Formats: sequence, structure tokens, C-alpha cells
Amino acid sequence: MNHIEKYQIIAEQEISKFAIKSDPSGLYDPIKYVLGIGGKRIRPALCMATCHYYSETGYLSLNAAIGFEVFHNFTLLHDDIMDNAIIRRNKPTVHQHWNVNTAILSGDAMMILASQLMLKVPDNSLRQIQELYLKTGLEVCEGQQMDMDFETQEKVTIPQYLEMIRLKTAVLISASLKSGALIGGASASDCDYIYEFGQNLGLAFQLQDDYLDAYSNDEKFGKAIGGDIVANKKTFLLISCLENANAEILQRLNNCLTSTSISSKSKIEQIKAIYDMLHIGELCLEKIEYFYSLALGSLKKLSLKDEYKAELQQFAEKLMGRTY
Amino acid sequence: MNHIEKYQIIAEQEISKFAIKSDPSGLYDPIKYVLGIGGKRIRPALCMATCHYYSETGYLSLNAAIGFEVFHNFTLLHDDIMDNAIIRRNKPTVHQHWNVNTAILSGDAMMILASQLMLKVPDNSLRQIQELYLKTGLEVCEGQQMDMDFETQEKVTIPQYLEMIRLKTAVLISASLKSGALIGGASASDCDYIYEFGQNLGLAFQLQDDYLDAYSNDEKFGKAIGGDIVANKKTFLLISCLENANAEILQRLNNCLTSTSISSKSKIEQIKAIYDMLHIGELCLEKIEYFYSLALGSLKKLSLKDEYKAELQQFAEKLMGRTY
Repeated sequence: MNHIEKYQIIAEQEISKFAIKSDPSGLYDPIKYVLGIGGKRIRPALCMATCHYYSETGYLSLNAAIGFEVFHNFTLLHDDIMDNAIIRRNKPTVHQHWNVNTAILSGDAMMILASQLMLKVPDNSLRQIQELYLKTGLEVCEGQQMDMDFETQEKVTIPQYLEMIRLKTAVLISASLKSGALIGGASASDCDYIYEFGQNLGLAFQLQDDYLDAYSNDEKFGKAIGGDIVANKKTFLLISCLENANAEILQRLNNCLTSTSISSKSKIEQIKAIYDMLHIGELCLEKIEYFYSLALGSLKKLSLKDEYKAELQQFAEKLMGRTY
Repeated sequence: MNHIEKYQIIAEQEISKFAIKSDPSGLYDPIKYVLGIGGKRIRPALCMATCHYYSETGYLSLNAAIGFEVFHNFTLLHDDIMDNAIIRRNKPTVHQHWNVNTAILSGDAMMILASQLMLKVPDNSLRQIQELYLKTGLEVCEGQQMDMDFETQEKVTIPQYLEMIRLKTAVLISASLKSGALIGGASASDCDYIYEFGQNLGLAFQLQDDYLDAYSNDEKFGKAIGGDIVANKKTFLLISCLENANAEILQRLNNCLTSTSISSKSKIEQIKAIYDMLHIGELCLEKIEYFYSLALGSLKKLSLKDEYKAELQQFAEKLMGRTY
């Protein structure tokens, strides 16, 4: 078991031990519920592992690591209200189980709890960690806003889309990695490289998520195939398709997007046929490869033992479902 | 003009100059809107004034002061969603002007902006300021939760009520005062006394707010007289009345509270008659006096120039509408 896997288990244990007040229960019960639902604990594991790589112990960054996980879960809690989501990890969402007001207020309290954890870092990194954490938190809000804007925005460009997923997803992974490195005593350049690694890996992962919605053959990705297509979601695939289509194909595509009589199955088939005609799948795979290579390039530049670099690469491969 | 009044003006100017990003506008426009609506800027003024009292300049605490104001406005933004309020300071609330999702997300971003401001304090007080700020932030959430719980809770006791208003309102004023003192270099005991001053003054002020709803003779308090009574709001008056009433009076009171046919005017008259019978107004005035005296007692203990103590006392008198 490598350090990342080891710290995933430790993060899970530490989160289950995280002492949260009981009173008022209306405020704190939903927080315990959200943190108890589980998850892969990737952010805290990466934070503790990178800290370990530079200092031979991940525990220096334990509180910051849990802080990132609590912050991440706070964003899920509030996003679920905004997205009207009723299920998260097979359990009712907080606003569904309790109500919207509870979800708003418990989310607010959760963000403060996360910030309190981010204070429990060594004095010499306190200011840097706080600045990185808050900058990242604001970026996550910006990403969520862009995502919501895209729903009603007529034209979204590929650079705008990439910026949205960078902010909404990638930067929190980067910040977790970089914080661990910072607390562990990494050099400024290593902190930058590990941040870039996380950011590019996060972009590759999100693009792969888009790709798999249309091109995955099985259910292990936990999402109905074609869900994005049915919902007219502006993914990398749809945006690229809109950008590359000529007038005639655009007409066909728009008919599919606006039709109210077409079945989901037929909509998916027709839109995928258009994607195939324009080689949108390949375009997406190229982009995934591009960001994935950038991530591995940043990884190579780290002044870390090969053994530790191998662990990060192994993590990247596993995240991307690659076995080579 | 004393320092508190001077810093109220400065706080207003600094808030209007506070640089907030433009993009995405859906996220940042509501924040500019909320901060532009105005307000008395009491929290930042108190923060800067106490800093001035200990260091002869309020500017050391400028960012923290603005941070407290931004945080305060964040809580108003989210509270307005929870309370379904459509107007705040004569303008539509954010969720009314935009929508609930915008209000949630802009509020989140606003809290992060507040936290970023709270980082911009001298190194030697950074950790203390952050700890105080976050502890206070969490207390404000707890107070809001208790307030919401009280709406459906059958029995609320006076100690529970006092704890709710302490958390929901008083602690943020205390923390603003104490932070200024801390940054200004006050002793630990002065920091405690100034915190107690703020807390007891906050309690006295909130109780006076309850009192004036039933007993104010004019409109200068900006609230329809008897609004709390009509809404069955569990104020100090109603809770005391429920605690002091005998079976027969309790029956009369409950009839008023549950009647759907009674007019607002008549409900106010009948309930005030019961309050008068049980001397609830006097009870409330005694409690106001109690906390007000405690506040002045803490003030006296401060090792500050008499001139500065007089300014704080003058502020307290003005806040309470006292002219003696």
C-alpha cells in the first residue's frame, strides 16, 4: 500500500473522530451526516502524502488535510441546493433530508469549521496556507458561478469551459497537494510543480468524465450513459461540436437539442452520430492526453525520491483508470 | 466628532473603495450591491476606534475592521434567504433581486472575502485574530440556528433566549471591539473587558429592541409597533409573560396567540394588557438596565485614558437612545 492509499484510510478515520459540537443539533447534525456519508478522501490523502514526501510524516498536515475535505464537502452541500440534487452518494442530500435553510446554515458553519482546521498548521506556514486556502475557496465559488451561468449562456467557448472546470474542480486538488508540500517543507519551485501537477490532472480527469458520459461502455462510472447529452449539458463534447459544425450539421444538432418529442435513447444516438462525424471523441481524447502529459511533466520536475514520484504517477494512472 | 464617529465615516469610504473583482459578474455584482446599500458601519468603526485608543491609529486594524463588516453583511444576506425577507434597508434583498442560488453562492464568496481581509493583520496578532473571528463566526451561525429553532419550539426559556441573542448579535460586536484592541496592543485583561463591554451592551440593545416593539411611541425605530406581537415572535416579553402567567392568564394569552379571527390592533392591545398586568415591561427594563450596567462596569475597568472611555460610554448611550 503506498502512502496515498495509507493516508486515505487515515483521513477516513480522522474524519470519523473529528469532534463536532452537539448543540444546537439542527446546525451540527447535518454536518456530521455529510461527513459521515464517506467519499474517497482524495484531497486529504494527497495533502498528507505530499507532506510525508517532504518531511517523512504526513501528520504535520493532518488538520489542513481534514480542512480541505470539510471545505470540499461544504461546497457539495451548497452545490446540491443550487443544482436541486436529491441524492448524493446514495443518500438524500441535506436540503432533501432536512430543508434548504438547514442546508444553507450548516454549510456556512461547515466552511467555518474548515477554516478553523486550516489554522491548525505550524506558525511558519500559517499565512501561506491561509492565503492559498482562501484564494482557492474563492476560485471554487467562481467556478460554480460560471457553471451556473453556462446553463443559460448561449455561447460557451472551450477556453471558458476549461477555465470553469479548472476553478470548480482542479484547484482544490492542487491546493491540497501544495499545502501538504508547503507544510512538509518543499521548495517554492516544488510547490509550484506539484500545484501544476494537480491542476492538469484535475483538468484531464474532468474531461475524461465528459468523454465517458458519451463513450463509456459500462456502469462503473456511476452515471447513466448519455446523461449529459439528454440534459443538453454544455460539456467539452457539446461545445466542441457546436464550434466545429457547419451550418447543416448545426441545424441537425439544434433540432436534437430543442426537440421535445425525441426519446432519450434516440437523442443520444443522433448526437453521438454527429460527434462521430466530427471526430469529437478523438478531439476530447487528445485534450485529455494533453493535460495528462502536462501533469506527468510537472511530476518529473519535482526534486523528490523516484519512489515518491512513482506513487504520484500511480495515483494519476489509477484516477484516470489507466492500467499501463 | 469622536473617534468612533470619525471611523464610521472612514469605514464607509474604505468599503466603497474595497476592490472586488468583476468577473464572474453573477458572483461579484450581488456582493457590491450588498456592501453598497450602506448601514451604520458600527462594527468596523468600533474595531478601528479601539485600535486607535491603544495605538493612536485605527489604521492598523483597517482590514480586520472591513472584514467584520463584510462578514456581518454576509450573515444578513444568508439570513434574508432563511427569513424570506424581501426588503433590507429599503432595497430588495439579493435573493429577491437575483435569485436564491445567487444569494447562496455570493454569500459564500463574501464570507471568503471577509476571511481574506482578516488575514491582513500584523503577524503578531494573526493567529489570535483568526481564532477570535472564526469562533465568533460559528457562534453567529449557532445563534441563527437557535433563532430558527425557537419558531417551532414549544417552550423557550429566558436563559435560552438570552443565549440566542448573545450569539446572534452581541458576539460580533464584541469581537470587533476586541480585535481592534488586540491589534492596537491592549493587554489581555483589557481585551477581555472590552469584549464583555460589547457583549453586555449588545444584550442590552437587543432587549431594548424587544421592549420598543411593544412600548415605543414613535416610528424612529424603523419598525411597525407591535410587529413582534402580531407575529407571535418569542421575544423577551412574550417568553417572560408565558413564564409568569397563572393558568387563567395563560389561557387568555394562548387564545390571543392562536386566534385567527382577532385583528392585529386588538391582538396588540390584549397582549399588552396582559404584559401590563404582569409588569412584563418593567421586567424587561430591569434586564436592560442590568446588562447596561454590566457594560459600563467593564468599561470602567479598562486601563485607557478617561477621554477614550468617555467616547465608548457616549457610544453606548447613543446606541441605547439615552441622552442623560
